[in-house]
Amino acid sequence: MKVIESISEMQKYSESLRRKGEIISFVPTMGYFHDGHLNLMKEGKQRSDCVVTSIYVNPTQFGPGEDFEKYPRDLERDAGLARGVGVDVIFTPSNTDMYPENYQSYLNVEETTKNLCGLTRPGHFRGVTTICLKLFNIVKPHVTIFGKKDYQQFVTIKRMVQDINLDLEVVGLDTTREADGLAMSSRNVYLKGPERESALCLSRSLVMAKDLYDKGVRDAEAIIETVIKNVDSYPYTAVDYVKICETKNLRDIKNIDAEAVIALAVKVGKTRLIDNYVFGEKLNL
Amino acid sequence: MKVIESISEMQKYSESLRRKGEIISFVPTMGYFHDGHLNLMKEGKQRSDCVVTSIYVNPTQFGPGEDFEKYPRDLERDAGLARGVGVDVIFTPSNTDMYPENYQSYLNVEETTKNLCGLTRPGHFRGVTTICLKLFNIVKPHVTIFGKKDYQQFVTIKRMVQDINLDLEVVGLDTTREADGLAMSSRNVYLKGPERESALCLSRSLVMAKDLYDKGVRDAEAIIETVIKNVDSYPYTAVDYVKICETKNLRDIKNIDAEAVIALAVKVGKTRLIDNYVFGEKLNL
Repeated sequence: MKVIESISEMQKYSESLRRKGEIISFVPTMGYFHDGHLNLMKEGKQRSDCVVTSIYVNPTQFGPGEDFEKYPRDLERDAGLARGVGVDVIFTPSNTDMYPENYQSYLNVEETTKNLCGLTRPGHFRGVTTICLKLFNIVKPHVTIFGKKDYQQFVTIKRMVQDINLDLEVVGLDTTREADGLAMSSRNVYLKGPERESALCLSRSLVMAKDLYDKGVRDAEAIIETVIKNVDSYPYTAVDYVKICETKNLRDIKNIDAEAVIALAVKVGKTRLIDNYVFGEKLNL
Repeated sequence: MKVIESISEMQKYSESLRRKGEIISFVPTMGYFHDGHLNLMKEGKQRSDCVVTSIYVNPTQFGPGEDFEKYPRDLERDAGLARGVGVDVIFTPSNTDMYPENYQSYLNVEETTKNLCGLTRPGHFRGVTTICLKLFNIVKPHVTIFGKKDYQQFVTIKRMVQDINLDLEVVGLDTTREADGLAMSSRNVYLKGPERESALCLSRSLVMAKDLYDKGVRDAEAIIETVIKNVDSYPYTAVDYVKICETKNLRDIKNIDAEAVIALAVKVGKTRLIDNYVFGEKLNL
């Protein structure tokens, strides 16, 4: 397994693979791997000759007061885990290489980023789309794999790739969960003592939403109210949002008559967690 | 010479050339070719195995009340001229393919686009950078060639390519001029009767600015005043702006102590013309 820090070295390596007709898959990450990340890499392994994963805690997608500084980092541990699932290249650029002096270009996906996490994290998706665009240009993959836990991110990246004509397949994988249902996230390490139990309010709320939907409920407000009441019944929790949106542009809908997703963000202690469920799909819980 | 309309066909063709190790050069245009365009294509011919030029009048870079509808178009004439200088592929996509329903992704270069034409054409450069990004992703060139008549565009595209890590060389060529000094532009066809003579106020003003600079004048305001007075002395003219900026981020400067450009935009009758000169360089007039 290669570890590459230089942008131009990564580009040259990818270009040489493409010239040989090899297929490159790419999993962009902020590191501190859990099984969710490793599942994306395994999927990449199935789909390509060379799996590249990037580890880069991207400053432009964190707002003031968010957890950029304390976001967990452990390259040595990550390298071991990546090697274990057959990753071929880890790309770990520096901040000064990624955002040099006079840096000033940003990509905005204007509709899909307005709602949900876009409401409470202004600028977050502009940072996400911009760093992904940069990484795609550096790694030059044929296929890129994202987890659907960050559903809005997945929809936004797919939209960007289609809009700007990147010759790139975007694959989304179902959320990987702990045995008790908690969606895997690098931020789960922040949860202290009994907060871990309270964090189950997210996945259990999705089960309730699914049950209501399966029983024929289509009124978004009714489902949202049930979910908020459920989250509120757990200690240490504070709802950021619970919303039901159509999946194309993530606009709120009142009645579930098109493909729709229920997405929620909850603060558990000081830790902000997200989860979601697309109605009609399987929920591995 | 091939004429390709389909985005996916263009991508496949470029990918097949890259796989063979061939170098692709690219000249993005809005068509209605003059010698300035043809010089860019000739430069591409020198630098590559395959010269691609796109002809696309991009709606997102025109503001309300601008000349999108009446912008001159003549594909047959353009195809003949392109063939004459050895262009290999003309790419002419449709508006519905380039901006399908739900299109919503835009790239902004935030500093270089604020001043000069950015002041009177809000949204123009967002349209330019976005369409260039799309075209680069479709044509997949190794080198792209722009004219420096649109100096702010050249600086902005160079900045974008560097910022988002496109593996692409951006080459700028000096402005091609008519025998009497008028910068070539597709919009020159709009000039009626005596307006053509008045249009010389731009290039003649640059000569005056150069002369002052060569005599040791470094005070921007003094040069700007001389130029404005000169433009005003021609009939049918109205100054949009005359500015002297540093060339990195195109911010106004008071004293010419770094690399600097004088840029001007003048309405001659109803036709808005631009021109510029980088102090210390040659001025082919």
